[in-house]
Amino acid sequence: MDRIAEVLFANEHFYQAFGTGDYQTMESLWAKGVPVTCIHPGHGPLMQRKEIMKSWKLILQGESASGLQCKGEEVMIHGDLAWVICYESLQGGYLIATNLFIQQNGEWKIMHHQAGPTSGRPSENEEISGEIN
Amino acid sequence: MDRIAEVLFANEHFYQAFGTGDYQTMESLWAKGVPVTCIHPGHGPLMQRKEIMKSWKLILQGESASGLQCKGEEVMIHGDLAWVICYESLQGGYLIATNLFIQQNGEWKIMHHQAGPTSGRPSENEEISGEIN
Repeated sequence: MDRIAEVLFANEHFYQAFGTGDYQTMESLWAKGVPVTCIHPGHGPLMQRKEIMKSWKLILQGESASGLQCKGEEVMIHGDLAWVICYESLQGGYLIATNLFIQQNGEWKIMHHQAGPTSGRPSENEEISGEIN
Repeated sequence: MDRIAEVLFANEHFYQAFGTGDYQTMESLWAKGVPVTCIHPGHGPLMQRKEIMKSWKLILQGESASGLQCKGEEVMIHGDLAWVICYESLQGGYLIATNLFIQQNGEWKIMHHQAGPTSGRPSENEEISGEIN
């Protein structure tokens, strides 16, 4: 698997956990031993792993994220860091998100997530992904 | 200047250009030779430097960003990459932003910016910044 595919796989894993309410997988996908940060739509930032996990537990217990899917992913890679920009497809609309990943022990783990409202829509044909070394 | 101060300086420089409509400085603050991405509040992603610069030209020509300031910055550093989470203080409200930086020739340049609405407010006392190496 090339590095872009690896990052896309990690990102897909994140949205699978998100859309199916799988807290245990969500927890395992966030990086350990490094700063992690999270900005949920309309909220202030969460700066501590414990607070971030608490927020996911609440979100994943609810119905609001049920069936959420990721669309129109774009991947950028620089060394052991990568970021993905993607749409989050929900009942009745889209959000736009940035997910920042770090490679730890061969796996891409999330360090930062920000999602917010958007009037944009994923394009089926456009995919621009780049690797920087 | 330590590395956290360097990143804060670059972030402050970005918001100074933003709040005073200084397009030339804004253009110089975005990284060259690497992928850059930008998500303005409520919009879809911009994936090309040319498109990003065009958007800033339009934004900085208008009145909407006049006097915009940055508040409650939090800095995370990993090697030659850093990200800042901060509030953008506008007439009548706040936005919340992620700014991703890369160190190029000793200067921190922007690779990615996402801003969106928030119900959060900057805390005057809280500042948690970390460096990962």
